Amino acid sequence: MALILKTDIERGDSWYRAFRTLMPELELREWDQPGNPEDIEYALIWAPPRGALRRFPNLRAIFSIGAGIDHLASDPDLPPGVPVVRMVEPGLTAGMSEFVVMSVLYHHRFMIEYAQQQRAHVWREIEQIPARRRRVGIMGLGVLGGDAADKLCGFGFDVAGWSRSAKTRPGVTSFHGPGGLVPFLNRTDILVCLLPLTAQTEDILNAETLAALPRGAAVISVGRGRQVVEEDLLAALDSDHLSGATLDVFRTEPLPPDSPFWDHPKVVVTPHIASMTIAETAAEAVVENIRRIEAGQPPLHVVDLARGY
Amino acid sequence: MALILKTDIERGDSWYRAFRTLMPELELREWDQPGNPEDIEYALIWAPPRGALRRFPNLRAIFSIGAGIDHLASDPDLPPGVPVVRMVEPGLTAGMSEFVVMSVLYHHRFMIEYAQQQRAHVWREIEQIPARRRRVGIMGLGVLGGDAADKLCGFGFDVAGWSRSAKTRPGVTSFHGPGGLVPFLNRTDILVCLLPLTAQTEDILNAETLAALPRGAAVISVGRGRQVVEEDLLAALDSDHLSGATLDVFRTEPLPPDSPFWDHPKVVVTPHIASMTIAETAAEAVVENIRRIEAGQPPLHVVDLARGY
Repeated sequence: MALILKTDIERGDSWYRAFRTLMPELELREWDQPGNPEDIEYALIWAPPRGALRRFPNLRAIFSIGAGIDHLASDPDLPPGVPVVRMVEPGLTAGMSEFVVMSVLYHHRFMIEYAQQQRAHVWREIEQIPARRRRVGIMGLGVLGGDAADKLCGFGFDVAGWSRSAKTRPGVTSFHGPGGLVPFLNRTDILVCLLPLTAQTEDILNAETLAALPRGAAVISVGRGRQVVEEDLLAALDSDHLSGATLDVFRTEPLPPDSPFWDHPKVVVTPHIASMTIAETAAEAVVENIRRIEAGQPPLHVVDLARGY
Repeated sequence: MALILKTDIERGDSWYRAFRTLMPELELREWDQPGNPEDIEYALIWAPPRGALRRFPNLRAIFSIGAGIDHLASDPDLPPGVPVVRMVEPGLTAGMSEFVVMSVLYHHRFMIEYAQQQRAHVWREIEQIPARRRRVGIMGLGVLGGDAADKLCGFGFDVAGWSRSAKTRPGVTSFHGPGGLVPFLNRTDILVCLLPLTAQTEDILNAETLAALPRGAAVISVGRGRQVVEEDLLAALDSDHLSGATLDVFRTEPLPPDSPFWDHPKVVVTPHIASMTIAETAAEAVVENIRRIEAGQPPLHVVDLARGY
């Protein structure tokens, strides 16, 4: 039983360590040295070349290393009939909630303005707004968005969510579908985008939708870069319609050195680090699914490829 | 029945509104226009001139507008026998927890480093540490420190507290007294100072105590500026013993325009805004105490002036 591993960055060692402990009978193979392709029953991957997974005739499941699976769904030559599994693991969820809560608090507490004052050596208090009067809106109420919503409710924020289909979550006002989008945006002071990238969510943050936010709103973009029309976001910041933005994902990554976001006084730029899969805890989720498959059960968290997430 | 009001900044209107609703029979008087001093039974104040409260012979309680009462305790001419009450109100507690959690997450998620990278247009991922391996240490486990500790536990941080006398709090490793200080600092990656200012806590963060923190630690100073020896903190940052600091309080406020903290690449400066008393909720706490006193009961949250908090 062999698993082929293709990671996004050099973190191979921690995967090897984790799998050796959890499932010693599982043989790990490097993407560039797969050995006999017929041995490979599982793939744990980030962004494989198109069609490359067809090389493995005995593949039983494809595990995405990240929460998003757009790097796989965009491949028309995936091996047919092999389930694609999204990464759901506590380390990834916890990391995203940390980043989202930090960023919501950062905008809530006027830290964009205070950072500008610091650069200008200005000491001036801005009157604080209680959390219950700050309306936070989360686009995407899946595993990540749901956990972030719960943590934000714990601070007393007025939290709403928007998703493709109707979802209910205690304490969270829910909007859904195309018809719910504008009402959701109209009531959102701090917007968090955690949507998966699909044909429906590409360019979803554009001049029209940003204009539906109240004046002074802030945007936190932690889904995928192609969901944001970057020129429209810049225009909304520069016209002071938006008070600030925290951007972790971009249309082009790494963000080009000449991007206007780097030096923008109202923008926090981070290099796609809002959350990372932690090998230690993620290997547990993969091993659990391999055991299910070996026992003839369906794996958990299978992606609907037609839907795109 | 009259209350004399002396606020730190221009927020008088919201106090008037709040008291008018909650206790219409209470007459509010301005500090500069007290009328007949014999009418004044209550004082709600920030930093009165020394001895000034002796003007009011019928004073029954002195309410501090802020959580700290060092602005009162340093006055040797307080009217004797009149209880001094610290401000304990949910708005102040919630605001402090927001600021502390935001700042702990900021240092935990390497945002000092990412802000430096942003200024240099550098896109580079720093490997994340799970919260359970990040040791947060809170100096001062009173109402504010305790609430912040609980919220940090909710993110899975390894939280400890240090206080003058032994305190127990579920999920928090407790240290206390002079003997507990160095062991507490030795195990603290992110230090939050929320102590009251007393003779014992003045200058408590100095070359010696900062050296007891592990290399790479961060400091969040939200108690009082005189608890930090600023030259020692600067030296610890410049020698890279500390990775960063968030400073909300300073020895001189407003922070002088030529302070080296303003432009320090590893320092976040905010103008003493970590938490503010919210008139709406604070007036409820004051009114509750006035009703207790009028009913012959002792007020809640009375300060021990000999102890200094």
